[in-house]
Amino acid sequence: MARRIQEVILIETRHRPGRLASALNVLGAHQITLEHLHVVQRESGWTRWEITIEVTPERLASAVEALANLPDVRYVGKSDRVFQRHRGGKVIVRPSLEIGSQQILRDVYTPGVATICTAIGQDPELAWTYTIKGRSVAVVSNGTAVLGLGNIGPLASLPVIEGKAALLATLVDVVAFPIALRATDVPAVIAAVAALEPGFGAILLEDFAAPDCFAIEAALQAQLKIPVMHDDQHGTAAVVLGTLLRVCRRTGKPLHELRVGQVGLGAAGLGICRLLARYGVQSLHGTDIREAALDQLRAIGGVPDTLQGVMRNCDAVVMTTGVSGLVTPDMIQRGQIVLSLSNPDPEIDPILAQDAGAIFAADGKIINNVLGFPGIFRGALDARATAVTDEMLIAAAEALADYAPDADVAPNPLDRAVHAAVAARVRDAALAGRAAISRGR
Amino acid sequence: MARRIQEVILIETRHRPGRLASALNVLGAHQITLEHLHVVQRESGWTRWEITIEVTPERLASAVEALANLPDVRYVGKSDRVFQRHRGGKVIVRPSLEIGSQQILRDVYTPGVATICTAIGQDPELAWTYTIKGRSVAVVSNGTAVLGLGNIGPLASLPVIEGKAALLATLVDVVAFPIALRATDVPAVIAAVAALEPGFGAILLEDFAAPDCFAIEAALQAQLKIPVMHDDQHGTAAVVLGTLLRVCRRTGKPLHELRVGQVGLGAAGLGICRLLARYGVQSLHGTDIREAALDQLRAIGGVPDTLQGVMRNCDAVVMTTGVSGLVTPDMIQRGQIVLSLSNPDPEIDPILAQDAGAIFAADGKIINNVLGFPGIFRGALDARATAVTDEMLIAAAEALADYAPDADVAPNPLDRAVHAAVAARVRDAALAGRAAISRGR
Repeated sequence: MARRIQEVILIETRHRPGRLASALNVLGAHQITLEHLHVVQRESGWTRWEITIEVTPERLASAVEALANLPDVRYVGKSDRVFQRHRGGKVIVRPSLEIGSQQILRDVYTPGVATICTAIGQDPELAWTYTIKGRSVAVVSNGTAVLGLGNIGPLASLPVIEGKAALLATLVDVVAFPIALRATDVPAVIAAVAALEPGFGAILLEDFAAPDCFAIEAALQAQLKIPVMHDDQHGTAAVVLGTLLRVCRRTGKPLHELRVGQVGLGAAGLGICRLLARYGVQSLHGTDIREAALDQLRAIGGVPDTLQGVMRNCDAVVMTTGVSGLVTPDMIQRGQIVLSLSNPDPEIDPILAQDAGAIFAADGKIINNVLGFPGIFRGALDARATAVTDEMLIAAAEALADYAPDADVAPNPLDRAVHAAVAARVRDAALAGRAAISRGR
Repeated sequence: MARRIQEVILIETRHRPGRLASALNVLGAHQITLEHLHVVQRESGWTRWEITIEVTPERLASAVEALANLPDVRYVGKSDRVFQRHRGGKVIVRPSLEIGSQQILRDVYTPGVATICTAIGQDPELAWTYTIKGRSVAVVSNGTAVLGLGNIGPLASLPVIEGKAALLATLVDVVAFPIALRATDVPAVIAAVAALEPGFGAILLEDFAAPDCFAIEAALQAQLKIPVMHDDQHGTAAVVLGTLLRVCRRTGKPLHELRVGQVGLGAAGLGICRLLARYGVQSLHGTDIREAALDQLRAIGGVPDTLQGVMRNCDAVVMTTGVSGLVTPDMIQRGQIVLSLSNPDPEIDPILAQDAGAIFAADGKIINNVLGFPGIFRGALDARATAVTDEMLIAAAEALADYAPDADVAPNPLDRAVHAAVAARVRDAALAGRAAISRGR
């Protein structure tokens, strides 16, 4: 199945009844999904519409041809809206205090700054209060596994980590900055990231390829005194667990009694398995084409199976393969929970899965990391945690399950209250963990 | 001579004539310099004043005792204003576009971001337009030579580099971020900074100790395709050259005909000598207690001398020793230009130097890097320069000399127009240099 991409096109219709409808009929007839539509201009009898669609390049070409044959409809071309929204990058830096007078300049720069440097030199703990360290997150990628695009390098990963930094800033007021790292060997990556520790309160690893990502994260977390979390593994796992908990509340059957299947055992798949096992899921089945991944599943306590076996025998199936259309409707069981999470194209369209009898189905657009990482990092910073523990991830999942407006609907990721709720639970879990450790447990 | 520090104290005076004057008389009698004074509260017959002073700890203690004996005056204590202005750190990150709707979220995060990643993967040049790279500066320090405080480490250097990032953001709209680096060995520093290249358009090295700073900067500039500038060397040099050019316009004697002396041949001192030689100063004399530094001076074409020799024979003397009170008024020559730049305490107070016959004297508070680095980096980014050349530094100096309101007064560093003028000249110099190279010169 060809990869579908998001495109934004511009068409113009004459200002007469039914003209937009005729154009949309053409798109629908070409199996093009509408994502968004709005007016960008209306004058001299014509209306210009900007339409966001998901489409394969071939279908778009044939739809454009069909549009050109419609009366009172003009195809203008592709919109550069997405490009425009990236122009100049997606984060800016501002002073936290306007430097508007000589006195402020002298306080925040020389000579005043020497007072703070000296104080921190004598008591490093003060850096958590008088520098950005207490609220800063490095969003680091070396671009070895960017989205579904593969190893396209650090420069091409920059838009992703800029986006995550922008979301952290917007959603939880964290001072997050993207760091696109030119380093691929495991020891070089570890050294480069470890060198960044002084100025940050936490590190989010993003889009590092498996299996190196496991060694990198483990070594960094062992070396550093701040949380280091590979979001592809653990952020995804928290959001998936939260979704399963939410759906289980509707079905009434507790999650730990379900047979859960994981299709695809890369960074995300193994992270999900690990957290589900930690949560108490007893019956965990998984499949992957790589034998080494199955060994890692066994190490977690999961049982290797075939794709067919997993689909046939599991109450809930989570898919993170990157293979669009891997699962066909006939493989879906009645009453099954189906999370087909590969972006941009899922293993099976949730609508098809539901039509085939799934009790719940969703894709990676809805069950997305953006529900997890902002609150997880904010909570970790608020607790001044030194690691993101499984207890903190489970707390995040429970907060998401509790917050959902109803069992069928995921929380709105732009609702800051969701992230505040996650952050509070994560912080509490971190503090409880620290208290448990200090009690010698 | 004991180190003077900036302190901010709070006193209260009864609301009667002459009471503040009596308190200030006490401070003056203790040789305490006033930096700033303002009312913070006025009620029930008493006024609370916040007074910023420069003082040695011993003198402050004795002044406080004397204040306590004054009628109608109360010493409240030290103000934590400087600390408060550092609380939470000095930079924040914001999205450059408010992420206020699902459509914007989908454009700037998944799935839209994949379009930009793919485009950059195919044409890396696009990163300069569609990521922060075209306007981002890493402000990097390992804390081995912080201000006059010495090797206090990367964590304690963070307030300085946060301040510089905040100034870059405020003064020239650059996306600057502080990177406090845990790395001291030269190869480790080079590797850690080089790894950061993809996400930045330029790198400002700050407070790296000599002599390692020379090797680090040279190796990085040779490896990387973006400008790498050690501000302590070259930013300082540009500002000093700008100041000397300005003063020479008043005296009427061209700079290249002057005998110029440099006292202190660390990172700043050697940077100044190098740029002055490059500008065309023929007679360059220098002094340092380290023999190796004198060899470096010889390599530039300068002549080693004693402190006494430099002071006696030079028309202009620049001092960057970090040794407060090194030069006494009897060493100053009539008509001499004296820049005593060590912060916070100069080698000789400019007022004493002027009283002793200097035609121009200034310290590091006035002749400060903040006049240089913002415009230099903005100009380098605007030209998409791959290095900061001497021609660009000289252009910055000339812009500063041209911009000064009159020959006796340095430009106001909070005036954005100053930095815009520097940036424009630096950009033009970079573009001219590139044109010269492409013409095969």
